[in-house]
Amino acid sequence: MSSKTTPAKKPAKTGYPPTDYERIFHPKAVAILGVSADENGVGFGTGMLRAIMAMGYEGKLYPVNPKGGTIYGMEIFRKVEDIPDRVDFAVVAVNARYVPESLEACLRIGVAGAEILSSGFSELGTDEGKELERRIQEVAARGIRVVGPNCFGIYCPASGLTFLPGPDLSRETGPVAFVAQSGGMAIDFAHAGKWLGIRFSKMISFGNGADLREAELLRYLARDPDTRVISMYIEGIKDGERFFSELKAAAAKKPVIVYKGGLSAAGARSVASHTASMGGNRVIWQSILRQAGAVQVNDTEEMAQVNLAFAMLPPKPFRGISIVGGGGAIGVTACDTAETYGIEIPALPPELQDRIGSVLPKPGSSAINPIDVANPLVGPPALKEVLLSAARDERIELQIIVSLLFHYKGLALAFGRPVAEVTPYRELVQCIRDAVDQTGKPVIAVLPNMTRGTESMDVTELIALTRQEYLSRGIPVFDELHDAIRAISHVNNYYGGKVK
Amino acid sequence: MSSKTTPAKKPAKTGYPPTDYERIFHPKAVAILGVSADENGVGFGTGMLRAIMAMGYEGKLYPVNPKGGTIYGMEIFRKVEDIPDRVDFAVVAVNARYVPESLEACLRIGVAGAEILSSGFSELGTDEGKELERRIQEVAARGIRVVGPNCFGIYCPASGLTFLPGPDLSRETGPVAFVAQSGGMAIDFAHAGKWLGIRFSKMISFGNGADLREAELLRYLARDPDTRVISMYIEGIKDGERFFSELKAAAAKKPVIVYKGGLSAAGARSVASHTASMGGNRVIWQSILRQAGAVQVNDTEEMAQVNLAFAMLPPKPFRGISIVGGGGAIGVTACDTAETYGIEIPALPPELQDRIGSVLPKPGSSAINPIDVANPLVGPPALKEVLLSAARDERIELQIIVSLLFHYKGLALAFGRPVAEVTPYRELVQCIRDAVDQTGKPVIAVLPNMTRGTESMDVTELIALTRQEYLSRGIPVFDELHDAIRAISHVNNYYGGKVK
Repeated sequence: MSSKTTPAKKPAKTGYPPTDYERIFHPKAVAILGVSADENGVGFGTGMLRAIMAMGYEGKLYPVNPKGGTIYGMEIFRKVEDIPDRVDFAVVAVNARYVPESLEACLRIGVAGAEILSSGFSELGTDEGKELERRIQEVAARGIRVVGPNCFGIYCPASGLTFLPGPDLSRETGPVAFVAQSGGMAIDFAHAGKWLGIRFSKMISFGNGADLREAELLRYLARDPDTRVISMYIEGIKDGERFFSELKAAAAKKPVIVYKGGLSAAGARSVASHTASMGGNRVIWQSILRQAGAVQVNDTEEMAQVNLAFAMLPPKPFRGISIVGGGGAIGVTACDTAETYGIEIPALPPELQDRIGSVLPKPGSSAINPIDVANPLVGPPALKEVLLSAARDERIELQIIVSLLFHYKGLALAFGRPVAEVTPYRELVQCIRDAVDQTGKPVIAVLPNMTRGTESMDVTELIALTRQEYLSRGIPVFDELHDAIRAISHVNNYYGGKVK
Repeated sequence: MSSKTTPAKKPAKTGYPPTDYERIFHPKAVAILGVSADENGVGFGTGMLRAIMAMGYEGKLYPVNPKGGTIYGMEIFRKVEDIPDRVDFAVVAVNARYVPESLEACLRIGVAGAEILSSGFSELGTDEGKELERRIQEVAARGIRVVGPNCFGIYCPASGLTFLPGPDLSRETGPVAFVAQSGGMAIDFAHAGKWLGIRFSKMISFGNGADLREAELLRYLARDPDTRVISMYIEGIKDGERFFSELKAAAAKKPVIVYKGGLSAAGARSVASHTASMGGNRVIWQSILRQAGAVQVNDTEEMAQVNLAFAMLPPKPFRGISIVGGGGAIGVTACDTAETYGIEIPALPPELQDRIGSVLPKPGSSAINPIDVANPLVGPPALKEVLLSAARDERIELQIIVSLLFHYKGLALAFGRPVAEVTPYRELVQCIRDAVDQTGKPVIAVLPNMTRGTESMDVTELIALTRQEYLSRGIPVFDELHDAIRAISHVNNYYGGKVK
């Protein structure tokens, strides 16, 4: 363990207190206050201990409870002062009324930061709750940074810190940081990210935000080398001016994707009851976010899709694209959608059309762009040829391939074999990867799943396998063509592409 | 078999030829031209014979091929004239160049209508193709109605006619009719409908549309007592004036949902290569559809969702709604979306809030509307109480309940039992159904599925089971809250609700 201590620094000119984020996000020793000796306990402290252990956190864990005892073979310390180690980070999950003194104890032993999972503070709207939160702020101001209270805390795949209750989140680290008051939103996005292929540098759910909040976290993440993309879900903000300037500064360095909830009258009401924040006017927010250069999204699905695009695509605009799919209607829909989002689908020159046409079934196929391969079972090598040829047109900067995998179910039934066996999905992904490598132009895969029935679970599983294969080869996957095109348009707008 | 013959009628003042739609959609005897004696044959004729047999069509089937032979124990007739029965409907799947004479033979023996699956006509753009299509039109004009050529034909669950290749489509009949040139679009929608709970009266894919087309089919469906909702995918139309007047007349009787593809420059190009139609200007189409009173949708997903809403909701606008879900952020998103679509989420009066609050966990819940039940595992009886109470507010005309079923996975892991066993989904659906019956106000269920991984197939299956249970009890299910709210807004606009 490092023998360095954090020296008391003067606040920098930013006005933010000194913060040792390294000790907070990558702690070598974590104290968990509020762990009972009951291994099956449902308390937040015990739950968090189990979750961090399940994540395979490699540092030291120190459970704390005034009653003492043992849990999972570990001694439960009666107070943090008894811990024979330098503690970097504390998880506080004791009853609200004991939180200020617990935090004070953590400060005393030099803990750099704490997340307070307990609720029972300003969100109650009671005088007692507000007073307890004020006391947290008072302790924090004296030298310990606080995430919370009333939050799910920090998820950091690299170190193994996780949300309450997030024992199953990915340990794979990635470029996306996420900040939100809402713990529910944070854990939903953490789960969705895991399934969609979004990997995170760190996520912070800060609940009531008594101390660390959006503006300061933005400033940190803008400088964090592990973070390439910042995303936020905002219900309300505390210091508008500071937030705007940090947002603008961060967005100048890396994409900042903002989902602002509560932009309607009823939404603002809902926000107020959720985290006691003010919502805000739709037009004002749109204009603020645009001026700051942030990327605004309008729901959780769009947020996830846009994060995926920024995380997996090269940092540049894609003005012209090609779209390859089986079934003409897909092409029509694609064009209409692309036009809506200001993306071009240039008609390929005759020589490329001929080249592409030569590998496609006739009649029924069309090589103009969108490229209709006519038959959803056209083989991967032919699809690779199509992508290689279309990429020869310099106006094509990105390619989208839409695969309707459920059509393989018919083949599976005809041959009496499982659908995942008759579908050449590994070869498909290999061919697409080869095309990306040979052309230097990114490809996005779209894998629509129209099935919803219990009898089509095999198709759903096939799509999941294919998605996994694509993601493992660095190719982003979307459910719907529309989602992919909309995500590209956000990338274009951020990197100075054609603005709608 | 009926001994009546179809008398040659004078064309009605509509200018459309007389058509015995009953014999076309509900044929007692079907001839299939182009069936080879090879039972494993991949030809369209043999494929269609297999598909219709798999559908359990109860009428007589007469395979036809000049070579004769037998297939599946049936005699293959060398020519239609040899069939010892009155044939109502013919499936024509012979080589393009033999289509006109085959159709002529069908006309001779008094067949009411034929679908021509063969391609090789005007879509090729060749003189020969165009001439063959002209000859089809000439035969049709003398008294046999034609669907096609270059189409997937008719799907009619009540009679057992099905698309090429649609052996697995539902035999359950329902209120939605669908018309499209595109066979791919038709069969995709037929499949999606099966999985989403949309049931069809009849679907017609008319391909090149040499004879029967959108305007005339609209006129028929507007009068068809089995059809309550008409939906169309249009790439291009042939007779604009007639189409507009039939559309307007149909939309005055029942909702007509139109997805017009090819509204962009590239889209129009794609349409041209797909079915040789003209696309059209976005603004012109929007205005035409609005003037006609049709419901315009912008992609296949929206088309399916809006059809589901019209098919399963009572025919009236729903100006105020309540939204019930677990996790505050859902409420915020809901409000923002509802405002966008001009739907109100009225704050409930204090006495109803108290009543609702009394059955919900505290702290964390909110009973204002959106109603945040705080914990995604709140039991069905409490949810029923919430719905019963919220419905007492007369401004609430419809309720939406959002269930994040994947949270039960945690419970399943904790108990070491399958997720479908620990989730009270049958009780949930029963409680929601009871609430609908007791309040007389419809409920929409939203079942988001964020999971995409192979390790979460059990959650996907749970959601499929719950969807099935809801649908079987007459409650529509959507994947996403946004989709449900947008669909309601279309229903509102059609039935004279608050226009956005």
